[in-house]
Amino acid sequence: MTRQELTEQIRKKKSYLCVGLDTDVTKIPPHLLSFSDPVFEFNRRIIDATRDYCVAYKINTAFYEAGGVKGWEAMERTTNYISRDHFKIADAKRGDIGNTSSQYAKAFFETMAFDAITVAPYMGSDSVLPFLEYKDKWTILLGLTSNTGAADFELQPAGEGLLYEKVLRTARGWASPENLMFVVGATQPEWFENIRKLTPDYFYLVPGVGTQGGSLREISIKAMNKEVGLLVNVGRDIIFSSKGEDFAEAAGARARAYADEMSGYLK
Amino acid sequence: MTRQELTEQIRKKKSYLCVGLDTDVTKIPPHLLSFSDPVFEFNRRIIDATRDYCVAYKINTAFYEAGGVKGWEAMERTTNYISRDHFKIADAKRGDIGNTSSQYAKAFFETMAFDAITVAPYMGSDSVLPFLEYKDKWTILLGLTSNTGAADFELQPAGEGLLYEKVLRTARGWASPENLMFVVGATQPEWFENIRKLTPDYFYLVPGVGTQGGSLREISIKAMNKEVGLLVNVGRDIIFSSKGEDFAEAAGARARAYADEMSGYLK
Repeated sequence: MTRQELTEQIRKKKSYLCVGLDTDVTKIPPHLLSFSDPVFEFNRRIIDATRDYCVAYKINTAFYEAGGVKGWEAMERTTNYISRDHFKIADAKRGDIGNTSSQYAKAFFETMAFDAITVAPYMGSDSVLPFLEYKDKWTILLGLTSNTGAADFELQPAGEGLLYEKVLRTARGWASPENLMFVVGATQPEWFENIRKLTPDYFYLVPGVGTQGGSLREISIKAMNKEVGLLVNVGRDIIFSSKGEDFAEAAGARARAYADEMSGYLK
Repeated sequence: MTRQELTEQIRKKKSYLCVGLDTDVTKIPPHLLSFSDPVFEFNRRIIDATRDYCVAYKINTAFYEAGGVKGWEAMERTTNYISRDHFKIADAKRGDIGNTSSQYAKAFFETMAFDAITVAPYMGSDSVLPFLEYKDKWTILLGLTSNTGAADFELQPAGEGLLYEKVLRTARGWASPENLMFVVGATQPEWFENIRKLTPDYFYLVPGVGTQGGSLREISIKAMNKEVGLLVNVGRDIIFSSKGEDFAEAAGARARAYADEMSGYLK
């Protein structure tokens, strides 16, 4: 999916919501456990209920890997189930030396049909470039994350600024906003304006709204650009809205509420 | 495996070799491709041929993920095949917000029976602590990696030193040498003494010897400590020694040569 196509989907649906499929098998409604693939069954119904209100789905690979081979199967099945009109993100936070990163890129962009993958910057350029070589796919590099641990390194001085600033400045030299995005946590509002100044045209994948307490309003007002430039992820707060038989309906309603709020921020 | 047990294995075998199972299916001998699981078949024979000369095996998850569900199966099978006397490392470079890192820890320490996992430091303490909570398992944090991209961030100024130094200084406060190690690339010899000064008692997992050109001699002389404190990984240079029917024999001979050299550095 190109940047233009993504923006068109956002304008059409009046939503920049990404639904996070952090499908913890211990948290799904118990009546699904009798299915042969309860995780996929849960995801399928969540996707059916939320697809009109979101433009992207984010699969958090950890929750699938925890299930071993069965979990990996559920991930592949889920990815195949999501329509081509939705932007499919593997939240995998990979990154390794060049020949290894190439294998990760192959795993998520070829073996599976993801549009995007999240990548960790610590190991530098040759750990990220093998992902960026896929011009029709997206690399989403960690910039400033939503967790408290961001204070340990990301928000520490590094040369003439903070480490996350150095990452943004360096990485914007690696690729254009046509196939590079950044992770910017919604729990870090004091830095939004600075981040947008450093990377005016890039899209951000924004975790941290919902259970983690970040403000949708604040990120929307402070960091939206002309092409919207935001994909705001909400995971647990949508997918685990209800533990009953109405879980999908409840998730749909919650996604719709987020989309409604978003439509108010879109001009 | 405890640190004492690991050191005992090293003393017994006179080797601190880790064999890297970077099993790229496009590089294994063609005659194996008729097996139902060629990657496992290759690994099984490599393990049988090298087990006496190494104390650890490192599975590079990228090469398995590139194969999808089948690749993940080959990884599980390989992990189960390695004996309990060998230290089993998942070179996965994971790391995410706390509840997600917990799922990765579960995937590699519970669903699969790895002894250790490599972890990326960028996201800070709460992204690493869920791994460290497993006291009988090992977290191997990226310190100074072997790739050229290490120059982009790891070797850049960060406060009173370089970023990798900040990572070492911070992380040594998180856990003792009983369940925390660091990745230190063999291609970075000018930093070995400084790194050992910062983390005198910790084990290092050392990639970069072999195809990447790092010197086994240099890392052994400059960074060995009283408990040895080194696991030197060699992947491609051992496992792809030969593309013929003698591939396992060739790999065994290559591993033996490394172990022989290592025995000379051990006092």
